[in-house]
Amino acid sequence: MIPGPTNVHLKALEAMQRPLTDHRGPKFEELYAELLENLKYFFQTRKWDVIPFTASGTGAVECIISNAINPGDKVLVPLYGNFTNRIKEIVEIYYGKVVTIKIPEREAVTASQIEEVLKNEKVKMIFVVFNETSTGVKVRDLREIAKIAHDHGALIAVDAVSGLGGDDLPVEDWDIDLCASASQKCLAAPPGICMVSVSDRAWEVINSMKARSYYFDLKLYKRFFVERRQTPFTPAIPIFYAVNEALKVLREEGIENRIRRHKVCAEAFYAAMEAIGLSCYAKKEFRSNTTIAVEVPRSLKDSDIRRIMREKYGVHIAGGMADLRGKIIRIGSMGMVNRRIVMRTINALECTLKELGWNLRVGSGVEAALEVFSKYSGVQLL
Amino acid sequence: MIPGPTNVHLKALEAMQRPLTDHRGPKFEELYAELLENLKYFFQTRKWDVIPFTASGTGAVECIISNAINPGDKVLVPLYGNFTNRIKEIVEIYYGKVVTIKIPEREAVTASQIEEVLKNEKVKMIFVVFNETSTGVKVRDLREIAKIAHDHGALIAVDAVSGLGGDDLPVEDWDIDLCASASQKCLAAPPGICMVSVSDRAWEVINSMKARSYYFDLKLYKRFFVERRQTPFTPAIPIFYAVNEALKVLREEGIENRIRRHKVCAEAFYAAMEAIGLSCYAKKEFRSNTTIAVEVPRSLKDSDIRRIMREKYGVHIAGGMADLRGKIIRIGSMGMVNRRIVMRTINALECTLKELGWNLRVGSGVEAALEVFSKYSGVQLL
Repeated sequence: MIPGPTNVHLKALEAMQRPLTDHRGPKFEELYAELLENLKYFFQTRKWDVIPFTASGTGAVECIISNAINPGDKVLVPLYGNFTNRIKEIVEIYYGKVVTIKIPEREAVTASQIEEVLKNEKVKMIFVVFNETSTGVKVRDLREIAKIAHDHGALIAVDAVSGLGGDDLPVEDWDIDLCASASQKCLAAPPGICMVSVSDRAWEVINSMKARSYYFDLKLYKRFFVERRQTPFTPAIPIFYAVNEALKVLREEGIENRIRRHKVCAEAFYAAMEAIGLSCYAKKEFRSNTTIAVEVPRSLKDSDIRRIMREKYGVHIAGGMADLRGKIIRIGSMGMVNRRIVMRTINALECTLKELGWNLRVGSGVEAALEVFSKYSGVQLL
Repeated sequence: MIPGPTNVHLKALEAMQRPLTDHRGPKFEELYAELLENLKYFFQTRKWDVIPFTASGTGAVECIISNAINPGDKVLVPLYGNFTNRIKEIVEIYYGKVVTIKIPEREAVTASQIEEVLKNEKVKMIFVVFNETSTGVKVRDLREIAKIAHDHGALIAVDAVSGLGGDDLPVEDWDIDLCASASQKCLAAPPGICMVSVSDRAWEVINSMKARSYYFDLKLYKRFFVERRQTPFTPAIPIFYAVNEALKVLREEGIENRIRRHKVCAEAFYAAMEAIGLSCYAKKEFRSNTTIAVEVPRSLKDSDIRRIMREKYGVHIAGGMADLRGKIIRIGSMGMVNRRIVMRTINALECTLKELGWNLRVGSGVEAALEVFSKYSGVQLL
């Protein structure tokens, strides 16, 4: 129950047992073509390219920057957590000029904040984190922000590593030029592969540029696929197998159903936290659909909560990152998450808090979650 | 039998079935620390760091350049195949100045060729490909070249992706500052992880530099390991499991035994090719220990040879790359390679050539290989 890597679907796990195939042979070419089609479904695009490669989600973010940003190019990066800060750092490594907006704590950027900045600044790209895993906040106005970007002649790039598949983000419909995601979050596949989707508008920019990295060169990936249905470099083949299986599972469930399932589970978690008496870190209107960030009560230590949950109940949750270390705990509600898993986690948390002397009525959280689930009894929950 | 990915050891394959672990939790920390120790054995170093991360071998090569080369820095890159050309391209992407030596066809660079250039050129780094997979040549004078580099105040960097573990390359003993390798070659693990070893001399250079990539930043990997025994980014956990198992298998066999096994198998292949009447592409003194490159007879087509071997005998071999496309076939003799596998491959090749009308005595290659194996009857061949 950490915010990724998440539990892997059994079919994806089993797929890694297949004998390796030659990545320059016909079997891999067939797999790769199928994988690319399935990835389009995950990103909800029909026309655009989605390019997978062997790296973590951060690799996908760096890939976007290295392909679309030249030294001196201005990039608007609103700051509201660790992963937004990371984007800023990467843009600076590539000698882009970062324009920032410091977002108040517990919030994500809004369309009006971006509009305000663009009145006085001309930027090449706006790069936002859709779901900020470090704080449990999410951007609500992404569609509007994309429109604002285009009205101002800028590209919109999105780090959707921990959001895609777990919250509404129809990439083509919302006109997101560059979107980064990864295998180990809402897709419920093992880590090792990340992906970048590229709009026609983004290709125009990328095609006009000299490569700034060889490994991350999207033009190279595109060319190798078009000419040979292959990847330019040896891919992590077992993970490719697994991701393709996970995508088939996603297709069977349906992307809308999966997103709805994530919404219901998140709502159940939030209701439980309130009933238990814990405060959610994110402001209500910015609460993430996939990462439940909760404040650690002053009388307790986050490391105790995490250790007892792990050792006594087999439930792994995460602590805070950077400035929030020790101040929050984070529950990943992603991927294979369902009623059973939510209940088990809330129950483990309740028992742990009780053992640590926190004043709660055991069962209150479970009851609140139960109420949420009964409200959505028609929703397919696995 | 392609020159990587190679057949994976069953223990490595099975390891990928384990449930995923939290990469910020104690189980992963233990695995990671053990993996780093085992990687040192693979690289034959006691004191130096070996840093693994999620990418292909090309990622490791780019990592070296992005960590140690600043714009304008001179790098000597002798050219003798596809992977040497790739290094040149990457150095140029990072605005390094490439000094080249064009090596005659069918050869690899020698110490005296490098010495000659360094008389007139001061370079920051010499970057060579130990085993050039595209042509089946290998560098014989690597130890001497490292010494020459240091005598001239330069770093020696080596792409040993397809050589490490299959040929003599004691990284610390030979004083190789930066050495790149990957999981899917002589280690017999699945692809997805690459590694870079870093000498103290190389750390001095790297530590004085500003990062030029975030994902490839070796300082970050080092800091995360020292402070937390963790990786900075979500690693391809199943591949980490597999690589650690493959390294344990390597330890059991012993690195010297594994190298000897590769040598015997390569010798058997070369003897067979000669007996069959095929010409080896590499000049005798530069022949690779892991990649058997053979010229395609004028009357035959490489694609026919490869297709029949694959379809009728289940043996996959590779064709030539770039300028050598259609002109050579390449057999990978790496990883789990042993008597049985060598014999099966030669037998399949003989039958295929016969079917295609090539004039040979079926069995002549197998017989020649048999003779080699009997010469080394004391060598452990799996």
